[in-house]
Amino acid sequence: MIKVAIVGFGNVGKAVYEAISASDDFELKYIVSKRTMDVIVPILKDVSELNNIDVAILASPSRAVPDLAASLLSKGICTVDSYDIHSNIVDVRARLDKIAKENNSAAIISAGWDPGTDSVVRALMLAMVPKGITYTNFGPGMSMGHTVAVKAIPGVKDALSMTIPVGSGVHRRIVYVELQEGADFNTVSKAIREDAYFVHDETHVIKVESVDELKDVGHGVNLLRKGTSGVTANQRMEFNMSINNPALTGQIMVSAARAVVKQKPGCYTMIEIPPIDYLAGDRDKLIHELV
Amino acid sequence: MIKVAIVGFGNVGKAVYEAISASDDFELKYIVSKRTMDVIVPILKDVSELNNIDVAILASPSRAVPDLAASLLSKGICTVDSYDIHSNIVDVRARLDKIAKENNSAAIISAGWDPGTDSVVRALMLAMVPKGITYTNFGPGMSMGHTVAVKAIPGVKDALSMTIPVGSGVHRRIVYVELQEGADFNTVSKAIREDAYFVHDETHVIKVESVDELKDVGHGVNLLRKGTSGVTANQRMEFNMSINNPALTGQIMVSAARAVVKQKPGCYTMIEIPPIDYLAGDRDKLIHELV
Repeated sequence: MIKVAIVGFGNVGKAVYEAISASDDFELKYIVSKRTMDVIVPILKDVSELNNIDVAILASPSRAVPDLAASLLSKGICTVDSYDIHSNIVDVRARLDKIAKENNSAAIISAGWDPGTDSVVRALMLAMVPKGITYTNFGPGMSMGHTVAVKAIPGVKDALSMTIPVGSGVHRRIVYVELQEGADFNTVSKAIREDAYFVHDETHVIKVESVDELKDVGHGVNLLRKGTSGVTANQRMEFNMSINNPALTGQIMVSAARAVVKQKPGCYTMIEIPPIDYLAGDRDKLIHELV
Repeated sequence: MIKVAIVGFGNVGKAVYEAISASDDFELKYIVSKRTMDVIVPILKDVSELNNIDVAILASPSRAVPDLAASLLSKGICTVDSYDIHSNIVDVRARLDKIAKENNSAAIISAGWDPGTDSVVRALMLAMVPKGITYTNFGPGMSMGHTVAVKAIPGVKDALSMTIPVGSGVHRRIVYVELQEGADFNTVSKAIREDAYFVHDETHVIKVESVDELKDVGHGVNLLRKGTSGVTANQRMEFNMSINNPALTGQIMVSAARAVVKQKPGCYTMIEIPPIDYLAGDRDKLIHELV
């Protein structure tokens, strides 16, 4: 049994809790959260109280993840996160790799679906078709990052930013806004369209009475590659999915928690992990059933 | 530079040759083949003559692969193959694992597209959606195994067996036969439909003047999984491809040859290899671009 703690209990933390409950090989020891809640495990207020566990699954906002992971790895506790700030992943990995190696622990970072399992599919496609272009088409689904950016704009009471795939890696943004009383729609709409998150994309802003009525955590992706294997062109492959976003993220983090305890000390992204390590059960049986 | 030899020079061996030629990190030292051919590397008649190489890529018929791999691994030479007799993979892996560990070498077996990269996709889907069903739908494309079975039937001069996906893992077989002079079509057709390769599938036998005119090495697959992540049902994902079969197989074997020299002694299937190991280039750059 892998002794595990969940750090953070928002949408993803709850999905991690569900995925652990549905697995036979984990023992949930603690949840770290400032919320009060109705669960059967001890609730800790701070990660500094964590001890005597194998892995901490960090379901915290990405910006908080590197420091949280560093503090746990330095205590010899393995970590899994779904850190999604793409441009910083190489640096975060280098920082945590050093700490993990010094403290005989291991981390898998960016273990969600993108970055995460999509990254593995992109790596596999590149191994199969070394020359060509891979397009990652997200959605339709809600973008957390874009939604947060809209909510910060003056006059916005609530918002939801949908990512719509137009194809070949291009995305349309449809932003639903609920205005504060007295706010001017045209001013808000212009501010959104000029924001750094939106300025390069086709963006439509729509005023609604209630953002809450639009909420749906469904999401999807289409990964498309066409290119050349050896000297043979026109090799085509794609990966599609239509999923509940937090449920998939939570499940992938739990599968990564299973893998992280099998790794040598260090920090890894998902493309650095043997896929069989994510799976429970007898190795020969898995090879027989999957290969 | 990885010093490599190609063993066997049929459709797949030629594709391996092309994939090596298109890569910068391999030095092709030998081809082992009884054919005469117009290439710029030494041709050896037998694998026993191989020496001073890092990896041998075995583009030989599956039945010959285990003994060939065993003899090379025992000389300390790594091997890659695309062994495709699914039911024997666990046993072949166990046999070669022992030899590889005793002789400080490594093997990646069943490194084609199925078994191979499809196996990796199936493993990844299982990590994302632990409960549910995965369907593997092959084709449309020529099945080598089925074609060979038809050619062995009395009265058949030439044959081609197409695999057509009907959905949910069920396949239709369309068998094109060119008859020997005097052979009776109904007798041949009945013998094919009663053969162990065909008896469980919907099989259509069609008489043609020339099988040669039908030849096409295009193939494809659709891997489909629907199931539950954590406690959330209806998670849907699929992987599709439309490819030149030997070109993809050859490329995957070359990518696996790049990976095998990075592994600890032992025998591995593709689901046991970190995907990044298949790729050429700087590790941080790959992580930056793919994750």
